[in-house]
Amino acid sequence: MNSIEKLIEAEKKNDSILCVGLDIVDDKMPRQIERSIEGMLEFNEAIIESTSDLVSSYKINFAFYEQYGRRGYELLEKTVAMIPSDIHIIADAKRGDIGNTSAAYAKAVFEELKCDSITISPYMGKDSVSPFLDYSNKMVFLLCLTSNSGSIDFEKEKIGDKYLYEVVLEKSMKWGSADNLGYVVGATHPDELRNIRTLAKDRYFLIPGIGAQGGSPDDVMDANSSGPSIINSSRGIIYAGGNEEKYEDYIRLAALELRNQLNEARY
Amino acid sequence: MNSIEKLIEAEKKNDSILCVGLDIVDDKMPRQIERSIEGMLEFNEAIIESTSDLVSSYKINFAFYEQYGRRGYELLEKTVAMIPSDIHIIADAKRGDIGNTSAAYAKAVFEELKCDSITISPYMGKDSVSPFLDYSNKMVFLLCLTSNSGSIDFEKEKIGDKYLYEVVLEKSMKWGSADNLGYVVGATHPDELRNIRTLAKDRYFLIPGIGAQGGSPDDVMDANSSGPSIINSSRGIIYAGGNEEKYEDYIRLAALELRNQLNEARY
Repeated sequence: MNSIEKLIEAEKKNDSILCVGLDIVDDKMPRQIERSIEGMLEFNEAIIESTSDLVSSYKINFAFYEQYGRRGYELLEKTVAMIPSDIHIIADAKRGDIGNTSAAYAKAVFEELKCDSITISPYMGKDSVSPFLDYSNKMVFLLCLTSNSGSIDFEKEKIGDKYLYEVVLEKSMKWGSADNLGYVVGATHPDELRNIRTLAKDRYFLIPGIGAQGGSPDDVMDANSSGPSIINSSRGIIYAGGNEEKYEDYIRLAALELRNQLNEARY
Repeated sequence: MNSIEKLIEAEKKNDSILCVGLDIVDDKMPRQIERSIEGMLEFNEAIIESTSDLVSSYKINFAFYEQYGRRGYELLEKTVAMIPSDIHIIADAKRGDIGNTSAAYAKAVFEELKCDSITISPYMGKDSVSPFLDYSNKMVFLLCLTSNSGSIDFEKEKIGDKYLYEVVLEKSMKWGSADNLGYVVGATHPDELRNIRTLAKDRYFLIPGIGAQGGSPDDVMDANSSGPSIINSSRGIIYAGGNEEKYEDYIRLAALELRNQLNEARY
């Protein structure tokens, strides 16, 4: 089964388009968990066990692992290995480099770590993205319009009568198919999301920015017009348990509520 | 000593603006070296020992290490630790993400790995770059105009009468000073390099693309007009020894020749 099939199957099986972002920071974990690599692995395991029947995918942001050096990389590998094999895994790594270098990054993420998809920055153009698309059984999510305040700096610069993010979208859509090339579109821009969806009706959108970053699930679902999508929440779910003893119950509840809210909006 | 001082001191001490890129691929190493992580470490050690008095800096492209997973990360850490403390180390990682994530990447590269500088992709704008600039004793090299063919796709799109890479340069120059914010400008575009230098006279340029990628040292030095710079060569130097028994002598010779060629052009 290739990565898009795995995503679609998980969506159906769990009746969910929710993605939980495993963005672990040691000092934000419940107090009773040891501040260590072992503790973070334990926390990830609890998150995965309490949500894996409620999600279509998990998103692993590499920065939160790399900050712990070699042992963080070990944590990353062990976390990937803990995710059930029928759930899609997104490597949120924002990579992109010249051809032979992108090929090495693709090998790292798709072969060594066996992730299903990866986020890529478009700045360097086609030959920086193609080595990832050469893995036709995997998926790429190219940054289009991101959820952060800095999206105004370059992504929203005008090239003729189009924004740069529209040029990125239109030009890159030819590089891959709907089966292996989707886009990152932030939940914090519902009006633009609506517009981007009209330009790319059949593409998967990875939509971060719900919750802690301020995006509203209802606004996003309305703007997304039932297009194929993965709605990510990280901090709003994984830290929902605070320091409660049964913190995993709160994590499950937060994931369940968001999944249901998204389902109500999309059906 | 902060990272720019270290760079300037190494330039003076070794009379060199050459950077050697440690882009190790196991099957390209001299035949007599074992194809293993240990072998790659041995090869890196030989490269560093035979060139560290001829360079201002080493550039470590993270992709070539990450492709070997956890053990590759270990190789990366050990390689960084082997570089003499008076030589500037560039983490060629092309990172960039929303604020709290960029902060974690900065911690990974500047605190865990103790590199002096990092390459960053500008696509996501100011708040994706600032967390790296917050380390005022370190340096950022922001992608401006890259050496690859894909640079035509977006970097050379026109925003009004300017190219995107010019807008990136002009807007971002306000985010950091000449001491902590420089730019990546590919050696494969000498005419544009000349123009970019007039726009940013005092900024350090990290210039890759010499050698295997086709950039000519003389053209680059002419276009760069004596601006502060780091000229990188990777494959042209590290694989100069082929399968020779004393391959390190050839590596040293290749580095020496390129250093001298650059010096002749800049004095």
